[in-house]
Amino acid sequence: MINVGIVGFGYWGPNVARNFNTTPGARVVAVSDADDRSLARAAQSYPGVRMMKDCRELLTAPDIDVVAIVTPVSSHFEIAQMALSNGKHIFIEKPFTASTSQAEQLIELAERKKLKIMVDHTFLFTGAVKKIKELIDDGTLGDLYYFDSIRVNLGLFQKDVNVVWDLAPHDLSIMDHLLRMEPSAVMATGVAHFQNQLEDVAYITIYFPGNVIAHLNVNWLSPVKIRTTLIGGQKKMLVWNDLVSDEKIRVYDKGVEGLDCLNTDSKEKSYGLRLSYRSGDMWAPRVNQVEALQGETSYFIDCINNNITPKNDGNAGLRVVRMLEAIKKSLTKGGALVRLN
Amino acid sequence: MINVGIVGFGYWGPNVARNFNTTPGARVVAVSDADDRSLARAAQSYPGVRMMKDCRELLTAPDIDVVAIVTPVSSHFEIAQMALSNGKHIFIEKPFTASTSQAEQLIELAERKKLKIMVDHTFLFTGAVKKIKELIDDGTLGDLYYFDSIRVNLGLFQKDVNVVWDLAPHDLSIMDHLLRMEPSAVMATGVAHFQNQLEDVAYITIYFPGNVIAHLNVNWLSPVKIRTTLIGGQKKMLVWNDLVSDEKIRVYDKGVEGLDCLNTDSKEKSYGLRLSYRSGDMWAPRVNQVEALQGETSYFIDCINNNITPKNDGNAGLRVVRMLEAIKKSLTKGGALVRLN
Amino acid sequence: MINVGIVGFGYWGPNVARNFNTTPGARVVAVSDADDRSLARAAQSYPGVRMMKDCRELLTAPDIDVVAIVTPVSSHFEIAQMALSNGKHIFIEKPFTASTSQAEQLIELAERKKLKIMVDHTFLFTGAVKKIKELIDDGTLGDLYYFDSIRVNLGLFQKDVNVVWDLAPHDLSIMDHLLRMEPSAVMATGVAHFQNQLEDVAYITIYFPGNVIAHLNVNWLSPVKIRTTLIGGQKKMLVWNDLVSDEKIRVYDKGVEGLDCLNTDSKEKSYGLRLSYRSGDMWAPRVNQVEALQGETSYFIDCINNNITPKNDGNAGLRVVRMLEAIKKSLTKGGALVRLN
Amino acid sequence: MINVGIVGFGYWGPNVARNFNTTPGARVVAVSDADDRSLARAAQSYPGVRMMKDCRELLTAPDIDVVAIVTPVSSHFEIAQMALSNGKHIFIEKPFTASTSQAEQLIELAERKKLKIMVDHTFLFTGAVKKIKELIDDGTLGDLYYFDSIRVNLGLFQKDVNVVWDLAPHDLSIMDHLLRMEPSAVMATGVAHFQNQLEDVAYITIYFPGNVIAHLNVNWLSPVKIRTTLIGGQKKMLVWNDLVSDEKIRVYDKGVEGLDCLNTDSKEKSYGLRLSYRSGDMWAPRVNQVEALQGETSYFIDCINNNITPKNDGNAGLRVVRMLEAIKKSLTKGGALVRLN
Repeated sequence: MINVGIVGFGYWGPNVARNFNTTPGARVVAVSDADDRSLARAAQSYPGVRMMKDCRELLTAPDIDVVAIVTPVSSHFEIAQMALSNGKHIFIEKPFTASTSQAEQLIELAERKKLKIMVDHTFLFTGAVKKIKELIDDGTLGDLYYFDSIRVNLGLFQKDVNVVWDLAPHDLSIMDHLLRMEPSAVMATGVAHFQNQLEDVAYITIYFPGNVIAHLNVNWLSPVKIRTTLIGGQKKMLVWNDLVSDEKIRVYDKGVEGLDCLNTDSKEKSYGLRLSYRSGDMWAPRVNQVEALQGETSYFIDCINNNITPKNDGNAGLRVVRMLEAIKKSLTKGGALVRLN
Repeated sequence: MINVGIVGFGYWGPNVARNFNTTPGARVVAVSDADDRSLARAAQSYPGVRMMKDCRELLTAPDIDVVAIVTPVSSHFEIAQMALSNGKHIFIEKPFTASTSQAEQLIELAERKKLKIMVDHTFLFTGAVKKIKELIDDGTLGDLYYFDSIRVNLGLFQKDVNVVWDLAPHDLSIMDHLLRMEPSAVMATGVAHFQNQLEDVAYITIYFPGNVIAHLNVNWLSPVKIRTTLIGGQKKMLVWNDLVSDEKIRVYDKGVEGLDCLNTDSKEKSYGLRLSYRSGDMWAPRVNQVEALQGETSYFIDCINNNITPKNDGNAGLRVVRMLEAIKKSLTKGGALVRLN
Repeated sequence: MINVGIVGFGYWGPNVARNFNTTPGARVVAVSDADDRSLARAAQSYPGVRMMKDCRELLTAPDIDVVAIVTPVSSHFEIAQMALSNGKHIFIEKPFTASTSQAEQLIELAERKKLKIMVDHTFLFTGAVKKIKELIDDGTLGDLYYFDSIRVNLGLFQKDVNVVWDLAPHDLSIMDHLLRMEPSAVMATGVAHFQNQLEDVAYITIYFPGNVIAHLNVNWLSPVKIRTTLIGGQKKMLVWNDLVSDEKIRVYDKGVEGLDCLNTDSKEKSYGLRLSYRSGDMWAPRVNQVEALQGETSYFIDCINNNITPKNDGNAGLRVVRMLEAIKKSLTKGGALVRLN
Repeated sequence: MINVGIVGFGYWGPNVARNFNTTPGARVVAVSDADDRSLARAAQSYPGVRMMKDCRELLTAPDIDVVAIVTPVSSHFEIAQMALSNGKHIFIEKPFTASTSQAEQLIELAERKKLKIMVDHTFLFTGAVKKIKELIDDGTLGDLYYFDSIRVNLGLFQKDVNVVWDLAPHDLSIMDHLLRMEPSAVMATGVAHFQNQLEDVAYITIYFPGNVIAHLNVNWLSPVKIRTTLIGGQKKMLVWNDLVSDEKIRVYDKGVEGLDCLNTDSKEKSYGLRLSYRSGDMWAPRVNQVEALQGETSYFIDCINNNITPKNDGNAGLRVVRMLEAIKKSLTKGGALVRLN
């Protein structure tokens, strides 16, 4: 039995607690939160579980195997470092850390102590992302052309992070997982409309080798909620609309043919325009409607028990933080191109 | 009666001809096209009208008052210059010219000759754009925050222009008309996936004074056709979906309140976060379903007869070309910020 | 404090229990269910509450004021009768009873004992139905022409009731509440496709005085889930789509004018066809997104404390059962017209 | 070359004329219309074609091979009879005739004179209906359970026919073509809300052998236009939405299994409820976007030239009229079941 301690019982903490508690082979044994009301709510939901106002008590408790860190990003590093130092595996909210150097230190520490880090990239465990991953990996889409995501809605404004740090980690972690490519450069534009000077509208372009391009449109000032991703491939293209209950993914047998793609090694170059369009059936594969977080907590327990490196490990978290840092830099420099690596 | 000559009877020319011909006070008297088949089609549709293979014959014909130039942009300047020099008003396809200097020369020439230029920014004459213009001008939306447009579909690839010159003129002319603001800078990213080296996916950010931002997403490789524009204002926000037949425009009584907008002159700065969200009714105003081009040709005849400067005159065309040029420059420089003025 | 006992802790019972328990002035003190596993689940959720296998123990417990009956319709009468006989108010699932005579007996018994009956017509407490009720009652829609509802999806087949008794009570209770008219006749057609001989597809027409017509389309064999109701009025018409999260209700400023409606008392009859169509704006009023059941249980406690007759009392339940009985009769007689009253 | 004469140049006539005129092997040589303005419009569109105010001139002209009758149904019989008597093939609007006896007489006359009748069931020539026909005929859907169609919109009210004769012929001809089954009985309910006493809302149920049921919902008082048909089969189910430009047909791999269907000859009857639901992918086959009427006129010329009996011949027209007559009878008798054959 793996004993889990939850640090932070605010908005998302209760979900993490509930899912660890219902994962076979795991149980929640302690919860900490500096806020009395949050702690009281936790006490009500988990009568037999220890409640601690100071997270240090939890981080040093000898019976705890896993610490789930569900606090604002600014506190991640300190808490995670103490947890790892005390020999605990960590499950940590996204974004992983506030900087790449913090992420690197935590990864190094975990490796040294032979502990697991799992960054809570929940979307990787949804039926939709799993299905898209399948369609990319088995070659259904063919070579990829672009990844274009729109994630807009009205608020909620965060006190200390802009719309990029709030919304883009979702897209960045999904994109990183699906494309498995190292981005070469990032560019971001955006504007803050209110006195807090935090961008509420931002547009991000990410360049990859081989003319693959990604674009994220994140916006806290949209009257309508949109969660739509277009992925264009040489063979097929898909649209993922996460807001519909059925047919979230539509795969289109559409494409452009007859002109070699720039990113292929075609020796024989032809200069005439000989493009032809293919327009065939649409197909909406059945998507499993499991609770993503349940799949994720079960997977983490499995990774610990069987010494597996999670796909959403510290390195995945680091890759997302690296892009966030580059985006921040580009925004600060008025949209300058920021090269990665 | 105003006599109209049509130069170019390819894809769009027949529509221009038909609409001028059914405009009271105007009639088509000549058509020219270098392509024999196009000319044959014109002859079939307009039995009594003169057909000319060489447009110079048309441009110098003494009985012609208006020349409608419906040819590729590369030929615009030469044809327009000859038409104006010969004392003809011109109605010209968008984009107006291939460069700002060409546009400026034509404007200067027209002014000197006291002739009208109308650039075919057809969308300005749709019921939807007219209604949105009304909602902005009468203060319904309040101060604007952003203009965000998506115009994507599968092809058709153009032989000699990229996706920006093909699709963005629509959005740029609409944006210019609705916002009536001078952009301060432009940034564009994009990628070409085929051997013709023309961008097929591009993302454009346009900065305006007062923290107003515009963004255009244009893509020739999308499996689905999308024509959606979000416009966010301080009082209300709207979504314009041009692909639905009813309820193209939805106005949302949604917004963020309680924190002064950055672009207002609030002396008293408060640093706490005191935002509140407003979420009320949605309203889809009835949009008139007239043929836009008919409204436009009638308006042009009216402008000529009553010596009115068209809202879509050469200067409007120039403003669009100036943005296109800046976008091109930014794309060429790998997304660098290009300042305007 | 009003003490509530829950009879039946299957699919819906837990929701009823939870909502009564969180209603100020009420608390759940006992749960009964003949099924051991259901009872065990209840015990886990409500540690301090009495669990009873035999509902008779609950129905006769002296400290219980309200009995919530959340069992199959076949058992409603017996349980409700015992509850009322023992002086308990009852909250009872829909359909109220298996026959009108049962309903009448329970109503009579409750009146004699000065007890309240509330039939769980949950939809009446949704933001959508409340808003539609407002639009009808304040004259926004004008005189009604028709009520047309589609409620279709794949399964779930019930063991002992057909699609009408499963799905139509929702529409019948909503229609009864909104129209407040006595139906004059009912006709129903339908077919059973499987060996259980229970109709899985059915179409119901209900006639009201004044040429008002209602139609229900219920179907367990539909590949897509549809929950759409059209309501046509002389002044405005509306569409209610219960499956969308925003803009559930759309009110259309559309109509037919210039010819007197048949159901008005126009003395001066004109026989020529002088209809004109009006087509104006669409408007989606903001709909409150409260949990309907919470509103309903609070309302019931309020009705008991302040001796108010619930709008969804036994008579409302009886009216629905009377229509269900007539529909059954019509189905049995191959779609014959069955007059009511 | 087959010479075609058009009788009636009102709303639909110009489309019929244009399509016959562009069909290889056919040409329009005469148009008749009693209305001067209609005839003037025809003259303008077809400069070289004979215009006749009196259709009898056209019906007796020796050079005409085919008469296209595009007039109100009340005049169909007389015109068609004269055309056939004069040795002309006829292409005739739907509904074929005002009564079954008229239809039978025309069929008999055509057979005797060895002439073709084609009833303009245009929908049979759409890409959507052709694709659905394919999916039924090749067994993709399996045995059919039901056909459920909704065809509602605002007006236009007809002077002399009710909503059934205006809208239902579309559905009846499509249903007849797709199901190829003889209906056993019909039931219809409906209401007239205006002084002309013509039903503007109607609901029609059609019974077929083997527990197949069809239902049509036709309404002239709907604020929104809906053209949706659900077809349920044992293996797959489909939804056809004719108002979307892409993905008109969605085929769902959904169904109910494990219980024998009533209409199969299963000897071994099981009485327990052992239903299981299947829920798989959705698939939207590519639908050809040809102009249906063009396909139909070409097919008619082909039928004449190669002596083929059209699928939409007089008998198809008769089957639709027979159902319309039965529906009328049922409506008149207050929704009584009307048996066919």
